[in-house]
Amino acid sequence: MADRAAYIAIDWGTTNRRAYAMTRAGVVLDSLHDDRGVLALKPGAYPAEIAALRERLGAYPVLAVGMVGSNRGWLEAPYVSAPATLDRLADACTEAAPGVHIVPGIALRNGKRPDVMRGEEIQILGAIRAGAAPPTALFCQPGTNNKWIETVDGAITDFTTVMTGEIYALLRGQGVLAGMLDGPVADGAPFRRGLRRGIASHNVAATLFEVRAGVLLGRLAPDDAAAYASGILIGADIGTREDLARRSVHVVGSGALSALYAVAITEAGGTPVLVPDGSTTAGIHAIWSLRA
Amino acid sequence: MADRAAYIAIDWGTTNRRAYAMTRAGVVLDSLHDDRGVLALKPGAYPAEIAALRERLGAYPVLAVGMVGSNRGWLEAPYVSAPATLDRLADACTEAAPGVHIVPGIALRNGKRPDVMRGEEIQILGAIRAGAAPPTALFCQPGTNNKWIETVDGAITDFTTVMTGEIYALLRGQGVLAGMLDGPVADGAPFRRGLRRGIASHNVAATLFEVRAGVLLGRLAPDDAAAYASGILIGADIGTREDLARRSVHVVGSGALSALYAVAITEAGGTPVLVPDGSTTAGIHAIWSLRA
Repeated sequence: MADRAAYIAIDWGTTNRRAYAMTRAGVVLDSLHDDRGVLALKPGAYPAEIAALRERLGAYPVLAVGMVGSNRGWLEAPYVSAPATLDRLADACTEAAPGVHIVPGIALRNGKRPDVMRGEEIQILGAIRAGAAPPTALFCQPGTNNKWIETVDGAITDFTTVMTGEIYALLRGQGVLAGMLDGPVADGAPFRRGLRRGIASHNVAATLFEVRAGVLLGRLAPDDAAAYASGILIGADIGTREDLARRSVHVVGSGALSALYAVAITEAGGTPVLVPDGSTTAGIHAIWSLRA
Repeated sequence: MADRAAYIAIDWGTTNRRAYAMTRAGVVLDSLHDDRGVLALKPGAYPAEIAALRERLGAYPVLAVGMVGSNRGWLEAPYVSAPATLDRLADACTEAAPGVHIVPGIALRNGKRPDVMRGEEIQILGAIRAGAAPPTALFCQPGTNNKWIETVDGAITDFTTVMTGEIYALLRGQGVLAGMLDGPVADGAPFRRGLRRGIASHNVAATLFEVRAGVLLGRLAPDDAAAYASGILIGADIGTREDLARRSVHVVGSGALSALYAVAITEAGGTPVLVPDGSTTAGIHAIWSLRA
């Protein structure tokens, strides 16, 4: 007899949504992936979205993570303060509707520097739970915004959000560098030269203008400008951390951006260890099990 | 008998254009200011624009400065390498049409770091020529991109472009900070707190996310977010320079942005000295006189 589903897990982000029919043992029986992220939905749309997902995956309880629990989503699931474990997250879920719970994000509240995350924590803690990363580690999670995340014994203790990808995308779209950044971004000599400039930079807002000046003065080939600019921004991001030398950094993700961060971490003297995507369901299932 | 005009001076930038009917003695007899900057004009439009300006101000020789001499403008007037004086600029003008000359910009070509300017140099060297600033000085010229400019004996010897204003404008328009940066930006406690964070920051792309985290966690009032973010970016810009303590910095401009930079320079231990706008005609006239 085939396993039956026990609940629906949803990774509900800003622009994407992934939903999974999960067994009691954490096996994914069915899934869907669409673009009905929170930016695509009106505030009142969520009950109907849940009904449609249940129509598709079965009439099960729902456990959701990510921006669905933000002030732009369904309803705000208040942040848990770091240090935070899967147990703390499981205890702090918010009921959004009958049988629908939202897992909170994590905040740095009391230090010198505030920071927040909502969704990334599930992937990190899921990777640890699944044995894909050690319980005490430094993680780098590239994306629109990169997150540096430190864990100790399975608790997220500290993290820093860096707006690297977002600033790159904005500069590519508009302003004095627009039109110069449409070439390929891949590892190679221009990317690595950019990395070294970025790591040494005291202010990325100054160093980035060297892309324009370099092209205008014939010191940078136009086809190399995108990779060089990406190198500067990722180098500055990496250079923010002064603790990478001879340290292992667990880089989350299997795409091209994660590979570029791995190159950058090596350039800064660290040792990148790639952690494949796909630990989010492990993280959600751990929370479901703790709540069961 | 009233003075007659001898030539037309044009400050022809990216988005704005100012044209002046100038006497042999450098007196402005008439002027116009419009939005026919180079981004508003097709490549072939310049001869007709000159004809229309001569219709309005008189059929005189023309001396133009700024982005009109760039690859986005009428034709490229090749950069002069720093160190550059008014004499060097006067020698290196490009004839764009009969009786129409374009003054080149200045480039850092041979150092570790490339940089370019086109237009700012005229205002700085004009201020020195007019006695509004000393011949050996450090200048700060805020704008869409801020320029730090060093002069020695009336020559521009070094400069750094920082994309402070542009990055601020991009972040206000799109992305995770959009919607948080629409409040007023003025000097006050939030701006100064931002300044201190920016000066101490190793990576403005990380520090800027504190704006969002601070608002979400109730540590930053939404109405203060714009001033705080501006403080971070201007603070990081100021913090790029490690040589401001007990140093005079000549801040060009009389607007609100120049006043904010003056506050920031003071915060970093420097002494701001405001240099009012309006030295561009003095700079152009010096070049015209050297060429006459």
